[in-house]
Amino acid sequence: MSPAKWTEPVLHGEATDWQAKFCLRCALMTSSAIREILKITQRPDIISFAGGLPAPEIFPVKEVEAACIDVLRTAGQEALQYTITEGFLPLRQEIAKEMHQYGVEAEPPNIFPTNGSQQALDLIGRIFIDPGDVIVTDSPTYLGALQAFASYEPKIECLPLDNDGMQVDHLEEILKRNKVRFLYVLPNFHNPAGVTLSLERRIALVKIAAKYGVPIIEDDPYSQLRFEGEELPAIMTLHKENTIYMSTFSKILAPGLRLGWVVGPQALISKLVQAKQATDLHTSTFVQMVVHNVIQRGFLGGHIKLIRKVYGERRHIMTDAMEQCFPEGVTWTSPQGGLFLWVTAPEGIDTRELLKTAVEHKVAFVPGTYFFPHGGGLNTMRLNFSNAQPDMIREGIKRLGATLKEAIGRLR
Amino acid sequence: MSPAKWTEPVLHGEATDWQAKFCLRCALMTSSAIREILKITQRPDIISFAGGLPAPEIFPVKEVEAACIDVLRTAGQEALQYTITEGFLPLRQEIAKEMHQYGVEAEPPNIFPTNGSQQALDLIGRIFIDPGDVIVTDSPTYLGALQAFASYEPKIECLPLDNDGMQVDHLEEILKRNKVRFLYVLPNFHNPAGVTLSLERRIALVKIAAKYGVPIIEDDPYSQLRFEGEELPAIMTLHKENTIYMSTFSKILAPGLRLGWVVGPQALISKLVQAKQATDLHTSTFVQMVVHNVIQRGFLGGHIKLIRKVYGERRHIMTDAMEQCFPEGVTWTSPQGGLFLWVTAPEGIDTRELLKTAVEHKVAFVPGTYFFPHGGGLNTMRLNFSNAQPDMIREGIKRLGATLKEAIGRLR
Repeated sequence: MSPAKWTEPVLHGEATDWQAKFCLRCALMTSSAIREILKITQRPDIISFAGGLPAPEIFPVKEVEAACIDVLRTAGQEALQYTITEGFLPLRQEIAKEMHQYGVEAEPPNIFPTNGSQQALDLIGRIFIDPGDVIVTDSPTYLGALQAFASYEPKIECLPLDNDGMQVDHLEEILKRNKVRFLYVLPNFHNPAGVTLSLERRIALVKIAAKYGVPIIEDDPYSQLRFEGEELPAIMTLHKENTIYMSTFSKILAPGLRLGWVVGPQALISKLVQAKQATDLHTSTFVQMVVHNVIQRGFLGGHIKLIRKVYGERRHIMTDAMEQCFPEGVTWTSPQGGLFLWVTAPEGIDTRELLKTAVEHKVAFVPGTYFFPHGGGLNTMRLNFSNAQPDMIREGIKRLGATLKEAIGRLR
Repeated sequence: MSPAKWTEPVLHGEATDWQAKFCLRCALMTSSAIREILKITQRPDIISFAGGLPAPEIFPVKEVEAACIDVLRTAGQEALQYTITEGFLPLRQEIAKEMHQYGVEAEPPNIFPTNGSQQALDLIGRIFIDPGDVIVTDSPTYLGALQAFASYEPKIECLPLDNDGMQVDHLEEILKRNKVRFLYVLPNFHNPAGVTLSLERRIALVKIAAKYGVPIIEDDPYSQLRFEGEELPAIMTLHKENTIYMSTFSKILAPGLRLGWVVGPQALISKLVQAKQATDLHTSTFVQMVVHNVIQRGFLGGHIKLIRKVYGERRHIMTDAMEQCFPEGVTWTSPQGGLFLWVTAPEGIDTRELLKTAVEHKVAFVPGTYFFPHGGGLNTMRLNFSNAQPDMIREGIKRLGATLKEAIGRLR
């Protein structure tokens, strides 16, 4: 049978106008500005603080190789076969142990592996948000969450951030006025802002949410990456029954595997399982078994220490360089963990414009305004400190400092 | 820092009534009946024809191991890092070559890797279906597609099946009366029915769809698994501009990896990429690179021949056993490929009831009615012939024959 005979089409129409075929929801799905920025900044001559990439030099490549071999030799057929949507039970047991390190007591039925925590955000949007429903986020907030939720067409009410995280004092007013589906919170080393929610605010948040019966979504990819200061309790430990917690192996192991997890009450997990079954049947059996194999021997503890050390050094190198190179009037957060810090330039600087001259200086960042659900923050930007190596960080900050000086000079 | 101090909750509420918190969409997301059946039939004493599992004995475990080692040693950091949503370019190039075997000429920008073809179905639902929009499927049809689309709340118009596949003669009437978003078709070795759409109907389908400007979704997981008869052209080859094609490595390599792909016009692929970015950022870099590594040396050709041989034998063993053991009045399809065949018992038999006695006889199947979007087909059932080994197939069909005899006896 030659495929050649098949190449005779019955019809050879005009190119279809696909834009006209898409449904209304698609108007909400635009390619993110960040995505476009990241494409530009992938040029090898540019020092990019724009992405959110972990340091690849310390990925546990050898441990993953050993795990692949072990899994395939001892349970190859199982690893390559379909599995249940709920996830690979031994992995869920390991995550339960891991959660103990986060201060959260959970059993396997409360734990649900997903394709990175981005999928958890999508599934949560799917089970909670009908078009027009109100949700509450901080502002700025994680852009991936805004994108995941946008498909379900929510109305977003925002709480501003300061150095102690989400400003919860306006929350009660919002909850009084609206039937709110959930609160979305990034308590530790916030993406993009790098700030951490104070204990006082965590407690206040939990009490107000409970009073109005509004679930809290605790998005916590970074808490294990604390290189300074004292750990704070997970929101889930403060009110377990009302919290849906999510985290990921992307920052403590490797993002290319795509494995995250949700912790929550069983009724919630069951609904997420139904939602996930319809979206992709299950997360890769092989990936789940490989990650289980890597972590079951207690590998993560030592590895997380290494990541903390490397990221802590890089954050210090970056803020030291900023002290030296950034002009007066520019301020920044000094996160005690995570991957990102937040820079505020003087009023009047539009960092979207600044990015253009920065790219001419061969350095890049993400303009902060993209992280605000309702706009604003034109003079802000997000910098990643985990991915670039020390010399590159110093050189990149020098270039960015020069760019800022020029722009501020033009303001006067 | 001891996690112990964290275990003091601020609030210790009543268990939240999560059902009351979920959005309206959730009413459409019920756990599939099949899922529940599969749980029962996983008892080791039951011979199950209920699942849709490939034969694990012939999974290429050693080739996957070699690929993992090669990928991690030559490009470990890349394999464990984030990648672009569009997918790993060398994999897309290999899929383009593979598509040539299917008679479809495509370039990498037309090809989009997904987490199995189930994710492709979800993303297609997401970009085409607003609540109340009309789509057309065959009936019975693939249950996973119904579940994926259900989240987007379509109205489904159905075309009945016969031995030549979807009966397209009623299609024009439906397209005249409704603004239809897309036609969903399983042209080869239909799941659940095992039938294949004839060339005449493919041509008719393409012409009518083009006349009304309605895109065709061609879901083709099985065409490479033809063990008898002559190949038919993919619908995409008949009208490329109006067809969205999808297939998967689940049936020709291994389902546990979760890797499928979509082929389509670039404007369509761009929108799917946006949709996928919001749902899970990207498909596992590692899995994409491992599959690329396995297939780049031309492994699939020989492996697919082996699968065809094994499944062809099993299908023959099953239909031979049915000839011997099934009572008069029971008919079945004899697929020339794929994983499933379709049994029709005499009117009056409800296969949901039959399943209960079948399980007592320690054999299982899926009642056919679950595959009908609007019900019906109470006397039908789906049998899988790829997963059980020959002796088990013979024994299972014997048990099912006895179960059918009893039930038919009770009818009189």
